Amino acid sequence: MEQDIETVRLLIPGPVTTQRATKAPMMRDWGCWDAEFLAVTKRVRDKLMAVANCGTSHVCIPLQGCGSIGVEAAILSLVPKDAKMLVPVNGIYSNRIAEICTRIGRTYVAMTVGEGHAPEAEAVDKALATDRSITHVAIVHCESSTGVLSPLGEIAAVVRRHGRKLLVDAVSTFGAFDHDAQRLGYDILVSTPNKCLEAMPGLSFTLARRETVEAAKGTVPSLGLDLHDQWKQMETNGQWRYTPPTQVVAALDVALDLLAAEGGTAKRLQRYERNRDVLVAEMGKLGFVTLIPPARQAPVVISFRDPADPHFKFVEFGLGMRRRGYVIYPSRLTRIPTFRVACIGAIDEADIRNAVRAIDSTMKEMGVTDYTPAQAA
Amino acid sequence: MEQDIETVRLLIPGPVTTQRATKAPMMRDWGCWDAEFLAVTKRVRDKLMAVANCGTSHVCIPLQGCGSIGVEAAILSLVPKDAKMLVPVNGIYSNRIAEICTRIGRTYVAMTVGEGHAPEAEAVDKALATDRSITHVAIVHCESSTGVLSPLGEIAAVVRRHGRKLLVDAVSTFGAFDHDAQRLGYDILVSTPNKCLEAMPGLSFTLARRETVEAAKGTVPSLGLDLHDQWKQMETNGQWRYTPPTQVVAALDVALDLLAAEGGTAKRLQRYERNRDVLVAEMGKLGFVTLIPPARQAPVVISFRDPADPHFKFVEFGLGMRRRGYVIYPSRLTRIPTFRVACIGAIDEADIRNAVRAIDSTMKEMGVTDYTPAQAA
Repeated sequence: MEQDIETVRLLIPGPVTTQRATKAPMMRDWGCWDAEFLAVTKRVRDKLMAVANCGTSHVCIPLQGCGSIGVEAAILSLVPKDAKMLVPVNGIYSNRIAEICTRIGRTYVAMTVGEGHAPEAEAVDKALATDRSITHVAIVHCESSTGVLSPLGEIAAVVRRHGRKLLVDAVSTFGAFDHDAQRLGYDILVSTPNKCLEAMPGLSFTLARRETVEAAKGTVPSLGLDLHDQWKQMETNGQWRYTPPTQVVAALDVALDLLAAEGGTAKRLQRYERNRDVLVAEMGKLGFVTLIPPARQAPVVISFRDPADPHFKFVEFGLGMRRRGYVIYPSRLTRIPTFRVACIGAIDEADIRNAVRAIDSTMKEMGVTDYTPAQAA
Repeated sequence: MEQDIETVRLLIPGPVTTQRATKAPMMRDWGCWDAEFLAVTKRVRDKLMAVANCGTSHVCIPLQGCGSIGVEAAILSLVPKDAKMLVPVNGIYSNRIAEICTRIGRTYVAMTVGEGHAPEAEAVDKALATDRSITHVAIVHCESSTGVLSPLGEIAAVVRRHGRKLLVDAVSTFGAFDHDAQRLGYDILVSTPNKCLEAMPGLSFTLARRETVEAAKGTVPSLGLDLHDQWKQMETNGQWRYTPPTQVVAALDVALDLLAAEGGTAKRLQRYERNRDVLVAEMGKLGFVTLIPPARQAPVVISFRDPADPHFKFVEFGLGMRRRGYVIYPSRLTRIPTFRVACIGAIDEADIRNAVRAIDSTMKEMGVTDYTPAQAA
């Protein structure tokens, strides 16, 4: 794939490697209230809604900032103050939803799932049957802290059957998975451009039921994070309420065209799945072991267990990889020492094979001879 | 000045025209937790603190988003819940501070100044002497909705003499004016990269007294807008808490070097003043009249009164200017019809002369023969 000038491949779960064409519109200055930029904003919103088959039921609300600020804005704006949210917690991002609720004073019930495990539809079903005061379920589609994918379709069906509302944190998955608003029937979905959409960080966007957004009018205890007012202004005159990250918006416009040109989310998912399969196979040949069984493993980011060999030091490994043109991160939370290699972004099988060669060469440079992890895990 | 590939000059009070070198680092992908990017973040924070002579008294806290979200985060995080804020209101941005206080439930007293007028130090002095329960004064340095500059130095002296705290909205001025933290003694200052720093929109930064930031620990009813936690994490491991707009941060790093290369804020102010003087003089020769008397007119953005000639239509004017490579906006709030031409950004006297020629040519194309405004104003 045609990438950037200075060769660097981001093997991280966002920001991701992007195509050169996506970055190109950042090389000019953009006004933000003129017809030209308002057209960019409209195109971006329309294309995002099309990706999720929003039809007329759901609207798109971009917001300045990052994914976590977007999730907070969505809860603050679109989840009623008297709601009670069920939050299955299996890692850093689902825990963050609980943390947001605590901070902004919303009621939630944490359902402990455990790191490296996915929340199960049966458990959600049981929780909703047991506690009828739960109004919302918040699901992180992919816990990219470990790489586990939640069974979104099954959970959405359970939530719908119980007549409750679903909030999806699709930050690390939107653009490569099925987020059909009609089929899944979520109330609220939040994502960002800088993961599977292969664009730049700097904003979030929320897809939400029109009635939910309309009902938020005048209720939000924040000016900047008020998604109702942001939406209303965009509907009224096409403008963002406050200065948007113009270059980031313009890049997303191009990235959405590239997604369509690739054949849409299903085709993109195929590429990511191929990236994952090649990565796991090639790393396996070298002796590396994945943290999570293949069945739960999203084609987003793979956690590999650190080699037991005492010559392995992650900092040195990261620097060696960077000298070879790759950015790679350790896992951020699991008690089992691992490092992560992402499958997403504007990278293909050839990039993955090159990356595995770079991993092998960096390991050898460090004096690591045996890549297998310690037995206990 | 060397600008961008596609020729467009933003004659608007932000986003501004930027140099090509500032945009260049946006043509690559950046990780956000690796050593390379952490070094960019550290350089940006250190340079911003140096521009404002922060020494050890004030710290720098960048935040994802835009200026208005930054102002809200600063009030939410760094102004105590039992504070009472004096807000002189002379336009859209000072009014927004009052609006934020209302939304987040903070006590304030609005001091009506009136559009096109600057808050006076004597009036602030009197208000502080009269109401001893006022703890903070919030000043918008330049009300770019009209172009009026507040006498920041005088007001800062008054606030200091009364032993109260000062919050400065320096969104449209930081980088070209004196914001010396030691001399002005402000408690909190908020700005963005995309005005006088001549970089990109996508983040804000707050300069605040270290004790004020430390005192905010555990008090902020928001996760994403918690400036204490954002600061603490940056101090601890150099990281942003959540994904930053990497390209925007990298561009700001370069823009701050270009500011130093120009000779710092005083030299930049000279260029902007020259831009303003040439603009007002050349427009005056054509018959245009400014809204605000020169004494109150910041070298940031100039409001010109619309020609009385019925052939003048702003929309057509804006489109004609865009065809000529310029982005220009109407004033957003004054009851007197005006349009605005900014002096800030990577533009110089030659750009201004060309812009005035473009204005003249666009007016003629529209059939406007007399540029003087209606008598009543």
